[in-house]
Amino acid sequence: MSSDRNERAAAYWPRSRLAAIDRMLKPRSIAVVGATPRGGYGGRLLGAVLRAKDRVRVYPVNPNYPEIMGMKAWASVAALPEAPDLVGVVVPHRQVLPVLEECRRKGAGAAVIISAGFAERGNDAGNEMQSRLAEFARESGLHFTGPNCLGIANVRDDIWPTASSRTLGGLTGHVGLVCQSGATAFGPFLLRAVDSGIGLSCIVSTGNEVDLDFTDFARYLVDDPGTRVIAGFVEGFKDVTKLVAVAELAAERGKPIVLIKIGRSECGAQAARSHTAALTGVDANHDALFRQYGIIRVQGYEDLLEVSHLLASHRRPARPGIAVVSHSGGISSLTADLLGQAGLTLPPLSEHARGGIKAILGDFGWAANPADVTGFAHSDSFPAIMDCMIEEPAVGTLVVASAGTGDQVEQVVRLRDRSEKGIAFFWTTSRGDTKTLPRLKASGIPIFYSPEKLATGLKSLFDYHAWRERWLAAGAPALPEPTAEQERRLESARGAGRTVLSEAEAKRLLAAWGVPVTREIAAATAPAAVEAAAKLGYPVALKIDSPDILHKTEARAVRLGLKSAPEVAAACDEVMANARAYRADARIEGVLVQEMVAGGVETIVGIQYDPQVGPMLLFGTGGVMVEVYNDVALRRCPVTRSGALEMIAEVRGAKLLRGFRGEPPADIDALADALERASYLAVHAAGTLAELDVNPLVVLPAGQGVKAVDALAVLALPR
Amino acid sequence: MSSDRNERAAAYWPRSRLAAIDRMLKPRSIAVVGATPRGGYGGRLLGAVLRAKDRVRVYPVNPNYPEIMGMKAWASVAALPEAPDLVGVVVPHRQVLPVLEECRRKGAGAAVIISAGFAERGNDAGNEMQSRLAEFARESGLHFTGPNCLGIANVRDDIWPTASSRTLGGLTGHVGLVCQSGATAFGPFLLRAVDSGIGLSCIVSTGNEVDLDFTDFARYLVDDPGTRVIAGFVEGFKDVTKLVAVAELAAERGKPIVLIKIGRSECGAQAARSHTAALTGVDANHDALFRQYGIIRVQGYEDLLEVSHLLASHRRPARPGIAVVSHSGGISSLTADLLGQAGLTLPPLSEHARGGIKAILGDFGWAANPADVTGFAHSDSFPAIMDCMIEEPAVGTLVVASAGTGDQVEQVVRLRDRSEKGIAFFWTTSRGDTKTLPRLKASGIPIFYSPEKLATGLKSLFDYHAWRERWLAAGAPALPEPTAEQERRLESARGAGRTVLSEAEAKRLLAAWGVPVTREIAAATAPAAVEAAAKLGYPVALKIDSPDILHKTEARAVRLGLKSAPEVAAACDEVMANARAYRADARIEGVLVQEMVAGGVETIVGIQYDPQVGPMLLFGTGGVMVEVYNDVALRRCPVTRSGALEMIAEVRGAKLLRGFRGEPPADIDALADALERASYLAVHAAGTLAELDVNPLVVLPAGQGVKAVDALAVLALPR
Repeated sequence: MSSDRNERAAAYWPRSRLAAIDRMLKPRSIAVVGATPRGGYGGRLLGAVLRAKDRVRVYPVNPNYPEIMGMKAWASVAALPEAPDLVGVVVPHRQVLPVLEECRRKGAGAAVIISAGFAERGNDAGNEMQSRLAEFARESGLHFTGPNCLGIANVRDDIWPTASSRTLGGLTGHVGLVCQSGATAFGPFLLRAVDSGIGLSCIVSTGNEVDLDFTDFARYLVDDPGTRVIAGFVEGFKDVTKLVAVAELAAERGKPIVLIKIGRSECGAQAARSHTAALTGVDANHDALFRQYGIIRVQGYEDLLEVSHLLASHRRPARPGIAVVSHSGGISSLTADLLGQAGLTLPPLSEHARGGIKAILGDFGWAANPADVTGFAHSDSFPAIMDCMIEEPAVGTLVVASAGTGDQVEQVVRLRDRSEKGIAFFWTTSRGDTKTLPRLKASGIPIFYSPEKLATGLKSLFDYHAWRERWLAAGAPALPEPTAEQERRLESARGAGRTVLSEAEAKRLLAAWGVPVTREIAAATAPAAVEAAAKLGYPVALKIDSPDILHKTEARAVRLGLKSAPEVAAACDEVMANARAYRADARIEGVLVQEMVAGGVETIVGIQYDPQVGPMLLFGTGGVMVEVYNDVALRRCPVTRSGALEMIAEVRGAKLLRGFRGEPPADIDALADALERASYLAVHAAGTLAELDVNPLVVLPAGQGVKAVDALAVLALPR
Repeated sequence: MSSDRNERAAAYWPRSRLAAIDRMLKPRSIAVVGATPRGGYGGRLLGAVLRAKDRVRVYPVNPNYPEIMGMKAWASVAALPEAPDLVGVVVPHRQVLPVLEECRRKGAGAAVIISAGFAERGNDAGNEMQSRLAEFARESGLHFTGPNCLGIANVRDDIWPTASSRTLGGLTGHVGLVCQSGATAFGPFLLRAVDSGIGLSCIVSTGNEVDLDFTDFARYLVDDPGTRVIAGFVEGFKDVTKLVAVAELAAERGKPIVLIKIGRSECGAQAARSHTAALTGVDANHDALFRQYGIIRVQGYEDLLEVSHLLASHRRPARPGIAVVSHSGGISSLTADLLGQAGLTLPPLSEHARGGIKAILGDFGWAANPADVTGFAHSDSFPAIMDCMIEEPAVGTLVVASAGTGDQVEQVVRLRDRSEKGIAFFWTTSRGDTKTLPRLKASGIPIFYSPEKLATGLKSLFDYHAWRERWLAAGAPALPEPTAEQERRLESARGAGRTVLSEAEAKRLLAAWGVPVTREIAAATAPAAVEAAAKLGYPVALKIDSPDILHKTEARAVRLGLKSAPEVAAACDEVMANARAYRADARIEGVLVQEMVAGGVETIVGIQYDPQVGPMLLFGTGGVMVEVYNDVALRRCPVTRSGALEMIAEVRGAKLLRGFRGEPPADIDALADALERASYLAVHAAGTLAELDVNPLVVLPAGQGVKAVDALAVLALPR
């Protein structure tokens, strides 16, 4: 494990923070402030907590009652006979802070704040109230979840400090669920988990996340031996660097994170001054981040549960091959079809396996992969058939697509118990079956109810493990400290007193980070330009050098392929005149005389700063490809070398780099190098840069490197 | 309605065929040949039929029993006291044909052949048996479904001639289901329909489709007033022209067809000699066909049921806007997010509506679209909230994303009863709810259980009606008869005695159908080439003219931009020498001297013949776009003008045609014209051509037309 990562994680999650979560989830004593005899949040929270009263000391707190639900009611937290591990807060919003102050004085362990009426109201009063709560959280050291949440549940130990009256009915499992929306956690998720027989280790709702947030609970669950998969439902992250840190820890332990992330269409009204900003949606950066850190993104409630459950119950499949067996040809075909469409492989059966199955089927069905074994799927021969398929060397996972009739479920469970390989069940009959489905659910074998969900579920399993293997091999990105020269460049950029850097300035920035740029010389006059051209060697290009002219081609202030001194002199005058005509008040520094870059493949490299996700690197192949197909790869910076190579592989247009139509293969090594370095620039220049486009970055034939031919940099406005 | 279409339909479906299906689905008398006292297919079929014995005369036929299930058993069909409307056949495969012969002699109406053991066995004996059955079907006039099916069910009239013992439990509805796989029809579909409370009008399984096939039953259901949507599960179509014919009839009546089509990965081992063949998968042509004829393709069982039910119960939404209301912010956001991702619109609420909702919510929730109305979703105020949203002029459909608690379901049903607009329910709690979900199911309001299915369902509804509107407006494609000149061209192509036509020959074919080609003159010698160039006007291009050299550039047998007679003469010698060096045995006719086409946008147009789908037209933008992005549109030929315009719109690279980066807009009119004409060529040349590539077809600026600059034609091998 990287010590860097360890240090970062330790800074985010000091022992006290994790200890508070531990006390919250495993309390010996719980006070319910705002408890009421029945109904309402206060009654429901107390009622839920009381279900654990044989293991947890419970203290109803409400000065208006002498007794609630048959228990002595206490007038205040201060009056309690002990400092409770956990305080459930269900009081009107104005009283929340006073109650918390009391909790702190008493030495309570942690709080769950159910009360609403804070920032979610969207008005000043709510925001103000929430700010004060946040301030309290920062200075008090008392940790809490909420406000505006529905509480939490330690499902394994059956302790439910939640204002929902629902339960999982005793179902426990290895998926830890953390949701910002309490109504979602204890509504659709809990109910569908019961429907599907998928057990959870805990349920946490975090509401407005004033103190503890999704990543804090995820960090706790990384250490929790009872949790194998962390499932989440989030609308946004307070601090994406914490998400990255917890994702790295989770990846090291092999504990997948599966998420629904809502991309509320706020459409950040960011002016698209450069390609980089225009080419990426708000949500694309999140998608890229998730892919980069192995976070599995899903869409619906059951997806989250089913995929999490599959990942929690299946090891990494030793072989990519999947075998499908069914009692029906139609079901078999559809299943195989959708698995194939998802990019999964169904290896053909060996002669040996086919022979074994044929001996059972006789003249009927298909002894193939997928197999249609007709009524033999509900016979004593089914175990032998399944053995033939699962024992195939190329097969890592067996899918039984069937109806569970007769002894089938028991046969499949027994196979699971004796086989090292993975088994998933595609249940083809009623979701409400009461004959054998309950047994199948209880067995923990992952069940899917539709072939397309089976396919995406298995795809996630394979993709996660493939990603993790690559990620472990790649190691942490080696982000160097900025050199003195780099610091100077940033300083001088900040000192430019402008929002836009000239091409020359932008290229000096790139060069300082080791991204090769065209050789070029600034010239204030035509004779100086001619002299520069002679130094560079003909042919040359000539461009206006002005921080006020972003679109040089539009201003007719670029001339390419100049072959002689007279051509350069004439072009210089012309370009300056055109620039002045284009924009009379433009500051014109002169012209830039540049070497011409011949051949190679045009690509685009961009840097932008996502307000949530942070510094992002963009890569695409140049020309119309980027604009027409939006064919780009995105990564949060810094990127590793293998990350850079993945970016290149991800872009479809990168075909052009691999020796397309007889062209020589391009210098992909040098390109990966440039991407890595640009990603360091992105991190070092955070706060200074707003956007940087290199367009084109020409990738020359292998061994000849890359060259930034044009660049545009926009500076961040000082706050 | 187009009379063409009428005629075609009448040819496919003579009255006798439809009448036989009618007798099959609405029998007054049913004989079960192979009936047995219990168990097995024979017993199950008789048992199922007997459930209708108060309405249908039932005759068990089996010479081995005097009595079966308390009824007199008959020794043979011949012995029956009447000619039965329907005969269920459940005898060993060798006896099927003799039984059918008897049925014909008796004058039976139709047959359902459950017996298996025909082509599905995949051996010669099975194929032979099936061929004889097919021959019988052709000559006897006795129509049947199967063999190797599970029978049919007239759900509405509660008559179940099926060897499955399952039923829908009295659920009827407006979706007619036709499946090739009987185990799928009476397995997953029937059971999930019961789970979801989705009623059907009929269930038909067609098995091996030796006589009646999917399209026959679909054609019958087009006329069936009790069926509003035709749902199907198919592995392949015997005759795609019948599918097209029934799709056209269904579209005219506004009766959607929703399909699962399995694309078994047979990967037709078709050598990819041209772009057109290489660029399209086997399944892509089916996808294109379905899109072209408004057939909605879905993936899973519940998708098919839910989408069909939605289309059966919702008219065309008068407005595209969707309003979402929930009791939870988290659920609201996720729902809105996925609807938005599917391309659906959630219009913002008017001041009026927001005011109305705010007056109810007070300080809590969001009076917006999507709305989070907190606990008011389960209160007496909910109808007023829903009214505010559904009465918005921009809203055509209201989605209630909630838990159905309390009176909510009744409130929603009452709103549905009084509103003209569409309502769909996204059910967020348990699928197994027994409190209010049964009432919601019984109401017929479309229910979705996950937000992503809701989104794709609603998208299908909108897309179907938008497609139908365009399709009705476009009218039938005006496929002209081939002219004498065109016939001559085809004749001469067939007479070429080669598989590949030369560029000049291929272009003459195109020109004969009115697709503009470059002006060009064939020249056998250098002096002739110079003379030709003078006639065409400089600059010219020069290419080898040989049917044996397909890749002229690779052979270095193309020269562009020749500006003078000496250049042409030299190039002519050079090109011929290179061609000979490239392939010594190539027949060389000389060179082709061509006008140079300057400017314009390169596109590719292709013709291919899909063994199942028939003549296909391909369009894409040229250059690397097609090869890197596979960015092409496909249509079955002929295409209408609006179909051609749709193809152009479908291709992302068509951006380049619309005045990209300051270029003049291209002549899209002329392009659509060329596509239409090429599609006529495709139809007329079926049997003669195998493939035709026009690459590039250059689209010049608006008003200047298009030009086929290069073309490659491969002829069909005579059978």
